[in-house]
Amino acid sequence: MMPLAGRWLSSLAVRSGGHGVLFDCGEGTQIALREANWGFRAIDAICISHLHADHVGGLIGILFMLANSGREEAVDVYGPPGLVEIVKGQRLLAPILPFEVRCQELQPDERFSVGDLQLTCTQGEHLVTCLAYRVDLPRRPRFDPERARQLGLPVELWGKLQDGETVAWDGRAVKPEEVVGPPRRGLSLAYVTDTRPSDALASLATEVDLVVCDVTFGAPDDAARAVETKHMTFAEAAELARQAQAKRLWLTHFSPALPHPEEYLDSAWAHFPYTVLGHDGMRATLRFDE
Amino acid sequence: MMPLAGRWLSSLAVRSGGHGVLFDCGEGTQIALREANWGFRAIDAICISHLHADHVGGLIGILFMLANSGREEAVDVYGPPGLVEIVKGQRLLAPILPFEVRCQELQPDERFSVGDLQLTCTQGEHLVTCLAYRVDLPRRPRFDPERARQLGLPVELWGKLQDGETVAWDGRAVKPEEVVGPPRRGLSLAYVTDTRPSDALASLATEVDLVVCDVTFGAPDDAARAVETKHMTFAEAAELARQAQAKRLWLTHFSPALPHPEEYLDSAWAHFPYTVLGHDGMRATLRFDE
Repeated sequence: MMPLAGRWLSSLAVRSGGHGVLFDCGEGTQIALREANWGFRAIDAICISHLHADHVGGLIGILFMLANSGREEAVDVYGPPGLVEIVKGQRLLAPILPFEVRCQELQPDERFSVGDLQLTCTQGEHLVTCLAYRVDLPRRPRFDPERARQLGLPVELWGKLQDGETVAWDGRAVKPEEVVGPPRRGLSLAYVTDTRPSDALASLATEVDLVVCDVTFGAPDDAARAVETKHMTFAEAAELARQAQAKRLWLTHFSPALPHPEEYLDSAWAHFPYTVLGHDGMRATLRFDE
Repeated sequence: MMPLAGRWLSSLAVRSGGHGVLFDCGEGTQIALREANWGFRAIDAICISHLHADHVGGLIGILFMLANSGREEAVDVYGPPGLVEIVKGQRLLAPILPFEVRCQELQPDERFSVGDLQLTCTQGEHLVTCLAYRVDLPRRPRFDPERARQLGLPVELWGKLQDGETVAWDGRAVKPEEVVGPPRRGLSLAYVTDTRPSDALASLATEVDLVVCDVTFGAPDDAARAVETKHMTFAEAAELARQAQAKRLWLTHFSPALPHPEEYLDSAWAHFPYTVLGHDGMRATLRFDE
């Protein structure tokens, strides 16, 4: 909520196959992206969890950064109802940009995609409407080129079959299962911030590789304040990750009243051992299973 | 215009006698203020040079920072015409604050004060209306208590005399010059950004202790681009400081195309030797003459 030196505001950047998605963009996000030395131009979508300044204040900087990088392709901004008005207010400072900014106010469970990434959202439980997001990168099943050659299938049809389409060849319908293996697990992550835990959030985050989760409060004693201000404690976030059967949990969004969040890790580990503390500039590469 | 890692956007904070004034507040200013460990609550006024995002984008963060610091006293925001609408747009993200935000669109040469600080502004020459500011901290003349006692003046009247008022005492008018010394030089600084140099700016900055000045462009060869985009080169800023007979010059607002601004210092020193490069977190204490 309040940036500290070395502990800035919320933003998560995801990139895959030349496409990028930003989740929230607190003040300073463009600076952090520069420090991370990421390509800026490929931010195709910005997903806002909720319309509080600490999650939106860096939007105008990001739009200018994209403009300065030479981007001309449209940028999609997704978020809860009210988004359009807020972006309009911000854009008084950037009325002219070399690309279109398309705002879309999302309904819970709405689906959209950015490149190969498939996204959806669920409503959390905060003081204002707040969306948690899930990203999936599906993985195509293994294709058996030997079998395809045996069937005499031309290479032009291989991609369609791998994508799950039945194709007509040699006077008959060739089904995908004749040349592709069983479904394969893709990659996924969930971004959950400024909300109480809920079954809907656990369901959104089912079996994701990574959950990035708000833990404004540390000690189990702070549970009452977490309820009151609609945030989570370390234990609650870890329990959410356990319930979702996620693979990993990153904790973030610590209250400025928690100068040493590591003191509370034990309370998270009791629920979910694959929990680590987030820090500015933290990054990971998610890879398909072997 | 674009923040780099370790070289953020424009902001200058001035404090005196418990009062604070911020000149511009680019994105990240609240973070820089925290890193500087300054008192946040005492920012009584924010003076915006012009309504470009790189000079205003951190405003909402500053307002939240002030709110979180417990401030309840009104905050004045000064700037060029158009300010009110821009602040209104920003405040969609902060509709409720524990203090009043009073916006005032300034005319050139308008005067206002913040505590003991006296401020004025002059219009620069930029792509949009841009104001340069001057701050003066006047110094009261030396008071001669021995002489005051000889005249039998009660202590209650001393302050008025030192402030330049004539007082009635013992059946006659006692003039300030009877008990105070000659006028004394105060302290002053000028904040000049995003503008071409001009005689009006040199006049605004006359004999200031410090000019903080935009130098977007480095080499004298870039003079044409400086003219086109309405900024200054190192040489032009130094010449402005010379013309103003300023004491010191800090250069700032380097273009991202100048990774090594020190390469151009020679061209500034040729005009004004008391020139240094600004850097993030730079600070100085100005003191009255001995």
